[in-house]
Amino acid sequence: MRIYEILMKKRNGEKLSDAEIEFLIRGISDGSLPDYQAAAFLMAVFIQGLDAEETTALTRAMMDSGDVLDLSDITADTVDKHSTGGVGDKLSLILAPAAAACGAVVPMMSGRGLGHTGGTLDKLDSIPGYTTDLTEKQLRQALKTVGVAIIGQTGCLAPADKKLYALRDVTATVDSIPLITGSIMSKKFAAGPAAIVMDVKWGSGAFMQTIEEAQALAESLVAVGKVMRRRVSAFITDMNQPLGRMVGNAMEVIETVDCLKGEGPADVMEVSRALTAEMLCLAGKAEDFEQGGRLFDTVIQNGAAFKKFKEMVANQGGDTAALDDTSKLPAAESSVDIAADQDGYITAMDTIGIGTASILLGGGREKSDDRLDYGVGIEVLKKTGDRVAAGDMIARLYYSSVSRKKEAVKKYRESVTIGSSSVDPPEMIVDRIS
Amino acid sequence: MRIYEILMKKRNGEKLSDAEIEFLIRGISDGSLPDYQAAAFLMAVFIQGLDAEETTALTRAMMDSGDVLDLSDITADTVDKHSTGGVGDKLSLILAPAAAACGAVVPMMSGRGLGHTGGTLDKLDSIPGYTTDLTEKQLRQALKTVGVAIIGQTGCLAPADKKLYALRDVTATVDSIPLITGSIMSKKFAAGPAAIVMDVKWGSGAFMQTIEEAQALAESLVAVGKVMRRRVSAFITDMNQPLGRMVGNAMEVIETVDCLKGEGPADVMEVSRALTAEMLCLAGKAEDFEQGGRLFDTVIQNGAAFKKFKEMVANQGGDTAALDDTSKLPAAESSVDIAADQDGYITAMDTIGIGTASILLGGGREKSDDRLDYGVGIEVLKKTGDRVAAGDMIARLYYSSVSRKKEAVKKYRESVTIGSSSVDPPEMIVDRIS
Repeated sequence: MRIYEILMKKRNGEKLSDAEIEFLIRGISDGSLPDYQAAAFLMAVFIQGLDAEETTALTRAMMDSGDVLDLSDITADTVDKHSTGGVGDKLSLILAPAAAACGAVVPMMSGRGLGHTGGTLDKLDSIPGYTTDLTEKQLRQALKTVGVAIIGQTGCLAPADKKLYALRDVTATVDSIPLITGSIMSKKFAAGPAAIVMDVKWGSGAFMQTIEEAQALAESLVAVGKVMRRRVSAFITDMNQPLGRMVGNAMEVIETVDCLKGEGPADVMEVSRALTAEMLCLAGKAEDFEQGGRLFDTVIQNGAAFKKFKEMVANQGGDTAALDDTSKLPAAESSVDIAADQDGYITAMDTIGIGTASILLGGGREKSDDRLDYGVGIEVLKKTGDRVAAGDMIARLYYSSVSRKKEAVKKYRESVTIGSSSVDPPEMIVDRIS
Repeated sequence: MRIYEILMKKRNGEKLSDAEIEFLIRGISDGSLPDYQAAAFLMAVFIQGLDAEETTALTRAMMDSGDVLDLSDITADTVDKHSTGGVGDKLSLILAPAAAACGAVVPMMSGRGLGHTGGTLDKLDSIPGYTTDLTEKQLRQALKTVGVAIIGQTGCLAPADKKLYALRDVTATVDSIPLITGSIMSKKFAAGPAAIVMDVKWGSGAFMQTIEEAQALAESLVAVGKVMRRRVSAFITDMNQPLGRMVGNAMEVIETVDCLKGEGPADVMEVSRALTAEMLCLAGKAEDFEQGGRLFDTVIQNGAAFKKFKEMVANQGGDTAALDDTSKLPAAESSVDIAADQDGYITAMDTIGIGTASILLGGGREKSDDRLDYGVGIEVLKKTGDRVAAGDMIARLYYSSVSRKKEAVKKYRESVTIGSSSVDPPEMIVDRIS
């Protein structure tokens, strides 16, 4: 097999064979393929695309580049959820224990935040004592006893993705549906769950800026799942404004506790309920989506979901007292209020801008080795569709260091558009593909 | 300016500005742009294309990456010819002295052969004593006294092309019209002629396999010439079989002498006449194409063209006695005849195959440092359209070493198709674009 001919085929828009894609990914993994040929391949794929079969071959080859976990001895119905990332997205913290409280087994491998997107592991790190580093043995033990664990990657999953991603990042080939699909699914499938619910965000805070792009990605993810014989469903959900009221690590844990007690913001509750219901369907714990939703309501109302969250936290070394009394969680020293400068309606929120304001406060990372301030964050008081009068508080920023506070306030202000005519709040769940 | 945004624009099929293209070529030239980003750029250009303005900017930036010769002090009407390469193409050796004999000043910078394509410099090297290495000062002197010089590159012309070509060669981005245009025109324009006649070959022995591809390249070359205010014309000529009867370095010099005496094969004479006529038009030495043709006929008939050739050879240290008596040129020790194995007509010639047979005899290079055997070559006795009887000689192969003789014979045999129905010989000049 010759790389030149593979490049020529894809360049001309022809279809590659499984063997050709495996050959390429192996070359990238073991370093035998020079970066410039990998870069030319990525650009050809970006422009000419890959069909479902090629995308599956890519996913499989990337998955096989590292360890592949097999959790089928625990149950054939493990289920996970994956989000394409957003601002204020604490859904994993809510639905993983809720689904486990309904009998599902949830091995959730998550990531840290980078750029405007928050990371589930960072939020959990704000709980004193909680560790996200579990060995495979500890993960299996947690799934057997608690039924749920939210952890970082165990072993070396899909190392080819790391190399490919680094190259995509410098060759303007990041936002390609097949390449994103391969990246997400290779890691997720390597982590072992039998079923996955994909939460594909769309809007001003999402990777996918339009519903159409989000749908294309969702369909690609589901299609690859089908060929690889994993149960995969996808939802298109809104990320045109932060999810819920809280943006920031400990602040989102507090909102998680509110939600698990049934007292969270309506948007977070709505999406948590839908995704949990779908997880229960895929895991065989609900007969249909409606029953899944009712099961979610039950474990929220009877406290079983919150109890399961505390069990999980305790099992991973976290201090559950800080969940019963959230004033024990890290908190910022000071706060500053932002007021509306005119009468009107909030008509749009630049969610990436709001995520950037959170980074400026110290709640997120610009570079992967930036240290976080767990207590800081943003309380979003007014959201899209809300009526405001000049002088009304629209947000409260919590900070500990003044160094970039002013910049954060400015950034938040610029991210909120106040107009004179009213708009509807965004529809949270736009589509479901299964 | 950021490379990422340039890649993104071209990836999306948008138009790049002159400044963006200059930035890129400068980065490639000075090594500040990593190969993987240059490779991604090349692939994006291959697929999305460049328009005439972008191609001109690319050409100019590549030209400006090195020395740029200015010969306008000698005359404002210097004229050169460039061919996209073929087998048996000795046209430069004929038309450069012919045009000079008609009063044109011809500074011709040529190359060596690689792969199935022969090189003008290699052919001249077979003349004892001839040197193709002239300094700029010697070149100027030659143009002033003789009016013509055929030499290798002086100085460092378009070094960006060398880097780009090496990368195109390993990323399957060679056969792109705008990249080929940039490569050819940057070197040609850097070499200083005010006017250029492009001989774009099409067919089984050419880079461009179809007339349409050849026309697209020709139009691109002429368009860039127009924007850069150089006089450029292009011809589409046939390369579906070797040009003339002789393939091989000294053997092509012998055929050149025949042509300059008016005794060469009809196909070589026809194309030489047309290209010379066009050169004379562009250089202001003929009023129109027809007059240019008549001037060619005159200098062939009165011996002025052959005399000019000998003047040029003498000026560059060559032994003109070997032109008056071509038996003094290098010659192969032995020959082998190839006969038709059936009655019929020659219906097709795989010209790349015939070029490869010539390489196997030692007359061409597989790698750039291969040494040549100047005396070997192929005498093509039957060509497309010719009737043959089984046992008729169709070619004679001249060799000095037996090591790959058998392979060469086999290759030549495979390259010639004999069929039962007659075909027309190819039309030599398909199109003229000016």
